Amino acid sequence: MEKNASDTKGQTESELKAYVSRVGEDAREASLAMASLSAEQKTKILHAIADALEKDRESIQAENALDVVDAKQNGISAALVDRLTLNDQRYQAMVRGVREIAEAEDPVGEDIEESVRPNGLRLIKRRVPIGGIAIIYESRPNVTVDAAALCVRTSNAVVLRGGSEAYRTNSALVDSMRRASTAAGLPDNAISFVDSTDRRAVEYLIKLDECIDLVIPRGGEGLIRYVAEHARVPVLKHYKGVCHTYVDAHADVPSSLAICVNAKCQRPGVCNATETILVHRDIAKQFLPSLVDALRAEGVEIRGDEHVRAISSDVVAAGDDDWGAEYLALIVAVRVVDSLEDAIAHINRYGSRHTEAIVSSNLAAQERFVREVDSGVVMVNASTRFNDGGEFGMGAEMGISTDKLHARGPVGSRELTTYKYVVCGAGHIRE
Amino acid sequence: MEKNASDTKGQTESELKAYVSRVGEDAREASLAMASLSAEQKTKILHAIADALEKDRESIQAENALDVVDAKQNGISAALVDRLTLNDQRYQAMVRGVREIAEAEDPVGEDIEESVRPNGLRLIKRRVPIGGIAIIYESRPNVTVDAAALCVRTSNAVVLRGGSEAYRTNSALVDSMRRASTAAGLPDNAISFVDSTDRRAVEYLIKLDECIDLVIPRGGEGLIRYVAEHARVPVLKHYKGVCHTYVDAHADVPSSLAICVNAKCQRPGVCNATETILVHRDIAKQFLPSLVDALRAEGVEIRGDEHVRAISSDVVAAGDDDWGAEYLALIVAVRVVDSLEDAIAHINRYGSRHTEAIVSSNLAAQERFVREVDSGVVMVNASTRFNDGGEFGMGAEMGISTDKLHARGPVGSRELTTYKYVVCGAGHIRE
Repeated sequence: MEKNASDTKGQTESELKAYVSRVGEDAREASLAMASLSAEQKTKILHAIADALEKDRESIQAENALDVVDAKQNGISAALVDRLTLNDQRYQAMVRGVREIAEAEDPVGEDIEESVRPNGLRLIKRRVPIGGIAIIYESRPNVTVDAAALCVRTSNAVVLRGGSEAYRTNSALVDSMRRASTAAGLPDNAISFVDSTDRRAVEYLIKLDECIDLVIPRGGEGLIRYVAEHARVPVLKHYKGVCHTYVDAHADVPSSLAICVNAKCQRPGVCNATETILVHRDIAKQFLPSLVDALRAEGVEIRGDEHVRAISSDVVAAGDDDWGAEYLALIVAVRVVDSLEDAIAHINRYGSRHTEAIVSSNLAAQERFVREVDSGVVMVNASTRFNDGGEFGMGAEMGISTDKLHARGPVGSRELTTYKYVVCGAGHIRE
Repeated sequence: MEKNASDTKGQTESELKAYVSRVGEDAREASLAMASLSAEQKTKILHAIADALEKDRESIQAENALDVVDAKQNGISAALVDRLTLNDQRYQAMVRGVREIAEAEDPVGEDIEESVRPNGLRLIKRRVPIGGIAIIYESRPNVTVDAAALCVRTSNAVVLRGGSEAYRTNSALVDSMRRASTAAGLPDNAISFVDSTDRRAVEYLIKLDECIDLVIPRGGEGLIRYVAEHARVPVLKHYKGVCHTYVDAHADVPSSLAICVNAKCQRPGVCNATETILVHRDIAKQFLPSLVDALRAEGVEIRGDEHVRAISSDVVAAGDDDWGAEYLALIVAVRVVDSLEDAIAHINRYGSRHTEAIVSSNLAAQERFVREVDSGVVMVNASTRFNDGGEFGMGAEMGISTDKLHARGPVGSRELTTYKYVVCGAGHIRE
């Protein structure tokens, strides 16, 4: 029932460091061994993981119940306790997720491009695993399983490091997955777990650039900043979603209303919900009164600039902090802009490179917005809520990247791969 | 004749920090402004840069001569002085390089993939610039021009920081390029220069993750490690080229000989030259004597294991340091391996993920080698020397990445781009 082959809890700083290094080296070795797995083998392993999680459900939920009791005793917020809780419905959804990943297309080995050079050399750009991936996360224990399953699918060795509040749950989940997967042929330590709640373990792990090829932090801004500041390994992060919807001068009013309301209200607590609505001054008089009414009807608090307030006097005055705020709630900032250019400048100043939308029937305006807005995903006449792995047809996702490299937008299984060049000759030598 | 809009030499630490921050912010602003440049405008700008470099040749070479005099007085090695020297031939090649980039295909705006979702949303993955790119380099002043031209081609703002030994040369090159390019319509500060030889300027620059999206260090291992250790910005690096050629049991002897000799000797001082030859034991007796003769005929010093020495007694004994050594000279390490598996294990332990080759007529051996060797470029029956932007048909390259993300192998103009998703709807809202 050991969590890793190298399973010793670090006590002193140097012991902890040596332990984390061993976890990294084991992951590197596992990642090399995974290169020989076929898609069929990985499918079988993933179903074996799902089977084990089903079989071990009661004992894992019992561990989760202990974590939840502790969390409540430690005064953790109700929202966090809720995220920590692995109830039946969530548990089943988690297992179903593994089966979906088992049945999903395997991106590894795909030839992305192929060409023949004038000298006859055949050049193939082939999709390959990244290698060792560290996932540093908080609260939601389903991340443990989602991340492990996506990494098995993509032949990456994964090193998991969840939050201390979910330690027992994550530990039990990893135990179950490790036993089942190695029995089904997954190399040892392809799924591993940093068995320490000491925060320094994270710092040591994300400096192991000889063993770990990518670190993905998932959680609050504090965690993500900590990882970004200390990592030597490349980081794929999702800071926050400060999404904008811009209603252009040439916009259909009913459609603009529907998009703005959907983008703000359909699920306000998620990262692809719109936080700021920008309205071109030429359409403001026509559009704003009905926007204010529609948002009010949904219970949204509106924080507007002076132009918005001139149209609807009981709108709250927006302060400087409202531009760029990630409310994750039924609150929206609304601003009137003089031009498309000003809308773009506002977004590039205050946005988080997550998702921006333009509503416009004018092709030139659409094209300029798409080109000049510096964001991973740009919507034209559609709600920002569509920036989502499922909506993109990717299946399971690890999150949505707000970085510019190596992946932007939803991070699915393809985004957990890289490429290598395979060059085939017939005794070619260079003149 | 100012090098940057924000051109003040930092004196105190906080002044230097503020200056570098301003350079970063100016680059960010320039990168946003570059989004509106068309391919034709950039072609025109690149020819204007080439024209200016031709016109200013004499004054730039005069500055270079001063750098060379100083370098000699400071006792810098003859090899480095040679690399620093911008003679007529090199100068002309540099300008020709700019014109080639001017005429090369523009990767920006290419639609990499397109699909329509079941709900009718059209999803486009479009190639876009990275944003702000910092290039930290040593010695060769042509990097100043190559990097600037590639960044103009790809609509990236570039921040250049060359070595202090080439300060006058780089400064004069940047002056010339800036004047010509802004006159031709390039946004201010799209090409900029860190006007300080203080090393702390590099550290400040590579922490500016709000402004700079990628840093590319080019130079010795010390420089690259320094950048990797201090950067918060993603790094694309080329540590070293410890390339292997593996001669399989099923290899054609004349072809193996030709490939080994070419890979080692055709240009031994470059990163894609082979440093270690691995020979399967089943072919060793047949192959090694002629390999030793052929390499000797080229003046190569051979450092072999006991099996190689048993066949040819006056081969030098390889020490532990020879496995994984980057000689960049007419020296080669040769080892006999028991199996394909051992060859792969050797490479994954000692290689630098640059280039590895297999010589084999056996398809299963080729496939296993290609799959299991963890390297950016894998050659089958071809010399390692083919890992090169020109040979790959990429045109100009910024170097060869030994990283796994965001690019592997030669870094050409496409590798200086990223992507964004453009999602086109017709008033789509999420249910």
